[in-house]
Amino acid sequence: MNDEIREGDYVLLYLDDKRTYMVRAESGKVLHTHKGFVRVDDLIGKEFGAHVKSNLGAEFIAFKPSIRDYILKSSRGTQIIYPKDIALIILFGNIQPGSHVVEAGTGTGALTTALATYVKPSGRVYSYEVRREFLEIARRNLERAGVLEYVELKNKDITLGIDESNVDSVVLDMATPWLIVPHAHRALKGSGTFISFSPTIDQVMKTVEELKINNFANVETIECLIRKIRVEKGKTRPETLMTGHTGYIVFARKASSRTL
Amino acid sequence: MNDEIREGDYVLLYLDDKRTYMVRAESGKVLHTHKGFVRVDDLIGKEFGAHVKSNLGAEFIAFKPSIRDYILKSSRGTQIIYPKDIALIILFGNIQPGSHVVEAGTGTGALTTALATYVKPSGRVYSYEVRREFLEIARRNLERAGVLEYVELKNKDITLGIDESNVDSVVLDMATPWLIVPHAHRALKGSGTFISFSPTIDQVMKTVEELKINNFANVETIECLIRKIRVEKGKTRPETLMTGHTGYIVFARKASSRTL
Amino acid sequence: MNDEIREGDYVLLYLDDKRTYMVRAESGKVLHTHKGFVRVDDLIGKEFGAHVKSNLGAEFIAFKPSIRDYILKSSRGTQIIYPKDIALIILFGNIQPGSHVVEAGTGTGALTTALATYVKPSGRVYSYEVRREFLEIARRNLERAGVLEYVELKNKDITLGIDESNVDSVVLDMATPWLIVPHAHRALKGSGTFISFSPTIDQVMKTVEELKINNFANVETIECLIRKIRVEKGKTRPETLMTGHTGYIVFARKASSRTL
Amino acid sequence: MNDEIREGDYVLLYLDDKRTYMVRAESGKVLHTHKGFVRVDDLIGKEFGAHVKSNLGAEFIAFKPSIRDYILKSSRGTQIIYPKDIALIILFGNIQPGSHVVEAGTGTGALTTALATYVKPSGRVYSYEVRREFLEIARRNLERAGVLEYVELKNKDITLGIDESNVDSVVLDMATPWLIVPHAHRALKGSGTFISFSPTIDQVMKTVEELKINNFANVETIECLIRKIRVEKGKTRPETLMTGHTGYIVFARKASSRTL
Repeated sequence: MNDEIREGDYVLLYLDDKRTYMVRAESGKVLHTHKGFVRVDDLIGKEFGAHVKSNLGAEFIAFKPSIRDYILKSSRGTQIIYPKDIALIILFGNIQPGSHVVEAGTGTGALTTALATYVKPSGRVYSYEVRREFLEIARRNLERAGVLEYVELKNKDITLGIDESNVDSVVLDMATPWLIVPHAHRALKGSGTFISFSPTIDQVMKTVEELKINNFANVETIECLIRKIRVEKGKTRPETLMTGHTGYIVFARKASSRTL
Repeated sequence: MNDEIREGDYVLLYLDDKRTYMVRAESGKVLHTHKGFVRVDDLIGKEFGAHVKSNLGAEFIAFKPSIRDYILKSSRGTQIIYPKDIALIILFGNIQPGSHVVEAGTGTGALTTALATYVKPSGRVYSYEVRREFLEIARRNLERAGVLEYVELKNKDITLGIDESNVDSVVLDMATPWLIVPHAHRALKGSGTFISFSPTIDQVMKTVEELKINNFANVETIECLIRKIRVEKGKTRPETLMTGHTGYIVFARKASSRTL
Repeated sequence: MNDEIREGDYVLLYLDDKRTYMVRAESGKVLHTHKGFVRVDDLIGKEFGAHVKSNLGAEFIAFKPSIRDYILKSSRGTQIIYPKDIALIILFGNIQPGSHVVEAGTGTGALTTALATYVKPSGRVYSYEVRREFLEIARRNLERAGVLEYVELKNKDITLGIDESNVDSVVLDMATPWLIVPHAHRALKGSGTFISFSPTIDQVMKTVEELKINNFANVETIECLIRKIRVEKGKTRPETLMTGHTGYIVFARKASSRTL
Repeated sequence: MNDEIREGDYVLLYLDDKRTYMVRAESGKVLHTHKGFVRVDDLIGKEFGAHVKSNLGAEFIAFKPSIRDYILKSSRGTQIIYPKDIALIILFGNIQPGSHVVEAGTGTGALTTALATYVKPSGRVYSYEVRREFLEIARRNLERAGVLEYVELKNKDITLGIDESNVDSVVLDMATPWLIVPHAHRALKGSGTFISFSPTIDQVMKTVEELKINNFANVETIECLIRKIRVEKGKTRPETLMTGHTGYIVFARKASSRTL
């Protein structure tokens, strides 16, 4: 028995690799595109993956949104952290089902969505954000992705401290990650992971220095480059344009403070 | 209350970024290294992250192994798929807690370990391998990582077909992925994901062609390059040596077969 | 005594890293830009490197055009080979002052300009192009760069053969380089170099195969990625956007045909 | 009439892409390799590109050394600047036949060899080196490559000043390039180029800052990554290992000092 689209489900209408639309299947709903309109409620009862045509004959595929779709559709014009970086944050950062994770800042909730997806069902994300207006956007994005229940959104300034203790990971995507290093050491379990994403090398230098003097070990800084390959018979080649840089990711593990 | 090391736990003894040792905390166990020996049973009762010295005074840190440690320690001299590629396979492939995933081939279980970690507790991995001798190694690696219960190891040739149906994802790390494409389409749910890792561009070309004629859509091929950055005051620079290529990853989503 | 700008000289008016204008210093000439107009003939008699203002107060610098400027300004809307690839073609291809080089196709003369600059004064470039309309554009570009005298432009189809013999290098930037391999072997001196630039891996595969069966050795294929770094106090990072691919370059050296 | 090997010529004996030997063709000379010995004087009178066998039957090809061979064979165990970086230094730095170039430090003369090759016959390289013992090695390497006559080797400390004036380019491969920036501005012609190669980002930051306050414009920092592709029917893929970083190259052009 395959998944079928039910009233209230989110659907990713895929036209081609560059044009996709995330819509909610609701009765009476119509999606307007420059390729004509699609009657969204016709999708209800169909299987995910079904083909559907606009009134102008353009063919869409009704995919079930993936975690990457939820991440990418969470941007709303702000700078979001890229799926490639999120993938590494999660695996290299040892975040997994059951993990308790502190995050800052929430932003529009793109990274939060991914973290919540991978700690569920028994883990939890504690997400700090000082800008109240972002928290509302994040809440809607988390709700749409179906993971709001795994997240505690906190309108607090993490530079003042972390409320939680014994957490598995602290994940930072903020301008001054080095200020959080001592707080993170206190909040983490022994052997827990510190992860920080920063666009500039200056931020990395400060953060790494702070980690070294705060009993973190196995400090590692990477950047990830993704090349897309255009695979076509007789014309296979990497894409001409490429994202050359998003940011650096710093990883570290908490070692115990030495008792002398 | 922090995690403490108990009898039977695996521990990663970390000397420096290049030298780590995975050992089991057992009474009477001693780890011999070129920096002297470490009495492993002394670790029992200590907190993860604790410092411990060898008889020659070399300092180790007793970390709780991460998912990446389990992946890397699963190689035993064979070629394993890299953590960077596994991270992308999981997130871009939409594999998450609860997913049902078909995998081939099992090999020593490095990728299987990661898949099982991320589909747990309610998901399941069905892992095909024709070489019986590998299945035994994989079983031990999965057991060590504590995820054997989420995996069904199958001594079967996946080119002959896939037993499961309605699965969320099919993940391939094998020499001839293109042969599995029609089987994968039948086994997958609508909108489910096909993921294939291949070292050569020739394999990618054949696989992508097969995907296009078998009702897969949103076919995407990427490669991932990781640069490690050496961050040191006044001497910050990328590492001289780099892994220049591991393989390409092909992703696709199952669209319904068109009924005419 | 510094270089001063004389009537007839080309000048690169530099506004910022993205906006430069190549103009000829002629009496009465005025350059119109969106930042106002610059009286070009005021430059005559000034030193290269001088600052000059538009009527709206925007400051330009009057640089002497570099070889890279001539390459980049030779495009006129067509796809040109990139300076980074040209640099490698020349050095890795052992092209140097005095070299005799066969080139195809000429196109707008961007690569020809660089080849001519580096073989001068005693070397020569024999440049084949079947499309007559391009030869006229190339001639103008070569003349502007001051290197026309080192080039023989030939309106001929190189797939039919190479007129020259005993040349040092054969450089190809064309759709079907593999067809030229046997001609190149005959035209080259012993130990001479074959160089081919191709956007797709399919072209590379065919060319390399042909080289191996035609007594070429030391066959090498590379691609070159350039990352630009934005260096700014406290904000240093690689540029976000990057050219991810231009093409592959194949290099080989002519070995003697074996006599049995 | 093809090039033939004469007494005194240097020859590159090529066994495979990893093993090459540079020898001088002299009567009585024998090259010993782990694949047997080759009678070098048998090569005299043969054409470059000829096949030659060792006494154990291993086949070598007698290539005429290329500029890249001379660069690579100039290392003698020290760190040399890579051909890829030299290629960009030359083209992006606008160094060409006739250029007058100041260089520091000479080291073993690898970069000097390339510079001399490309400024010949009418240009000149003024190369500064404080360590006298290196100058002797450099002299031998330049002599072997046949370009010593285009170079003036200077046993001087460039941080104390540059003797030359009105030069086209200043090229630096030294630990403290920022100290040379004011000297370079005085030594260069208007519109002349400053080029600096540095392994660390810290060096780049200091150098760029100094350039900006010393009337240089069009300051540009790049790094170059070369991927080698293994092209083999059915097994085409980038090489596994790659040089991930050699250094950054900073380019700038001299603008006039503003007169107030």
